[in-house]
Amino acid sequence: MDRLYVIKIGGNIIDDEALLSAFLQEFAALEGHKILVHGGGKIATELASRLGIVQELKDGRRITDEETIKLVTMVYGGLINKNIVARLQSLWCNAIGLSGADANLIPSNRRPVVNGTDYGFVGDPVGTLDTGNWQFFLDHNFIPVIAPLTHDGKGQLLNTNADTIAGVIATTLSNLYEVHLVYGFEKNGVLQDINDASSVVSNINPERYKQLKAQGIIVAGMIPKLDNAFAALQSGVTKVIIGKAHSLSSLINGTTGTTISYG
Amino acid sequence: MDRLYVIKIGGNIIDDEALLSAFLQEFAALEGHKILVHGGGKIATELASRLGIVQELKDGRRITDEETIKLVTMVYGGLINKNIVARLQSLWCNAIGLSGADANLIPSNRRPVVNGTDYGFVGDPVGTLDTGNWQFFLDHNFIPVIAPLTHDGKGQLLNTNADTIAGVIATTLSNLYEVHLVYGFEKNGVLQDINDASSVVSNINPERYKQLKAQGIIVAGMIPKLDNAFAALQSGVTKVIIGKAHSLSSLINGTTGTTISYG
Repeated sequence: MDRLYVIKIGGNIIDDEALLSAFLQEFAALEGHKILVHGGGKIATELASRLGIVQELKDGRRITDEETIKLVTMVYGGLINKNIVARLQSLWCNAIGLSGADANLIPSNRRPVVNGTDYGFVGDPVGTLDTGNWQFFLDHNFIPVIAPLTHDGKGQLLNTNADTIAGVIATTLSNLYEVHLVYGFEKNGVLQDINDASSVVSNINPERYKQLKAQGIIVAGMIPKLDNAFAALQSGVTKVIIGKAHSLSSLINGTTGTTISYG
Repeated sequence: MDRLYVIKIGGNIIDDEALLSAFLQEFAALEGHKILVHGGGKIATELASRLGIVQELKDGRRITDEETIKLVTMVYGGLINKNIVARLQSLWCNAIGLSGADANLIPSNRRPVVNGTDYGFVGDPVGTLDTGNWQFFLDHNFIPVIAPLTHDGKGQLLNTNADTIAGVIATTLSNLYEVHLVYGFEKNGVLQDINDASSVVSNINPERYKQLKAQGIIVAGMIPKLDNAFAALQSGVTKVIIGKAHSLSSLINGTTGTTISYG
């Protein structure tokens, strides 16, 4: 099986020109099949404030009302996506910017109202994806750059978490490729000591995960992230890597970051 | 040769929900290969005004400064493009929304300063396009939906006239397909009497064009449009059709609009 890198970057890279530039150079230089999934960063929030669109949060999550889905469609699907594509093209990386609506890549269900909370135009991907289109792009050496937007098949765009999108792409394509899933993170990786940025745990397998939890080293905030990583492994992904994405090559060769695998 | 429709729509369709809806249904139902090129409509101008971005005009043309290229990237590449794609997907039309930066579809040169006028981040496509990617999408029955944005190959997105984009796509692909180029227009077509909307000239060939110009029937505003149409025919396009795009099927079968050809 060919290797495929699915790499997710978030606000800490997108909002920092020096880090974004370093990341894009390393991403362009990375050999083999690769897919980039980007989040939104602070740009959507800033634009909302300039436009006077009030951003309502519920339990720390953004409610995507009618104005907000327009806003994120502009910022994620347009501004961030097309700029990343143009910059990758200048680095001889044949990027193609897509949302989950394009070519019906990521069909979703609008999230139902749960306990009285309506998240608005938020989509949860419908199980695994049709591999045909993805393979078609990868076989022709296109580099998909995916904005965190999906659609409901009835004409409505939906706001979708970029980590979720990276996860569903990675697990779906693990039938066809040896998938390494890289989650860009604001920290260097999973830390032994939360106050010591250099105390990165390089490798975690299920046994080590149990130990680290038992020792209280892995704390609340990291548990869902690691549970998701193990779920991806269980669905066929070979490795999940968490760390600072701007030093992508060292993250991928294991000199930085935390690699989660069965190994 | 298979037939290919290249269809350009502008603000009069995009800004009118009823017309857009009618157009998209007819476009989805149109059989064979097809490419949709959309302009921007009033949405970019409205958003500029909400954001307090002053739109500078020079001889009636918009200057695309740094704020404006961001704005049109959001509106054209994001909001309009992705919404059209999601709606076409709901009509079982396998749309894929792209800009000229994606897959390097439309490389451009930034327009040089002419007579002291700097149009800013405006791009003019570099001659004909590489047919490979276009053919690749069409062969796999994707329906490209093209936003009027290109790039300079050095990482910069550029604002590009949608009529120009439709023209360069049509002429490039006329080597591979029998291309019918449809320019959506705010009028019913070329009119015999400018004050009578029903006085459409159904067919124009080079001889008839000479007559109409000599008789003063074709007036200043239409001459560049028709000159462009004849230039497209000279470059291999089979037909150019001008008229109201929401009644697409009647435009294509010639019951409405003006068809320009050598016939």
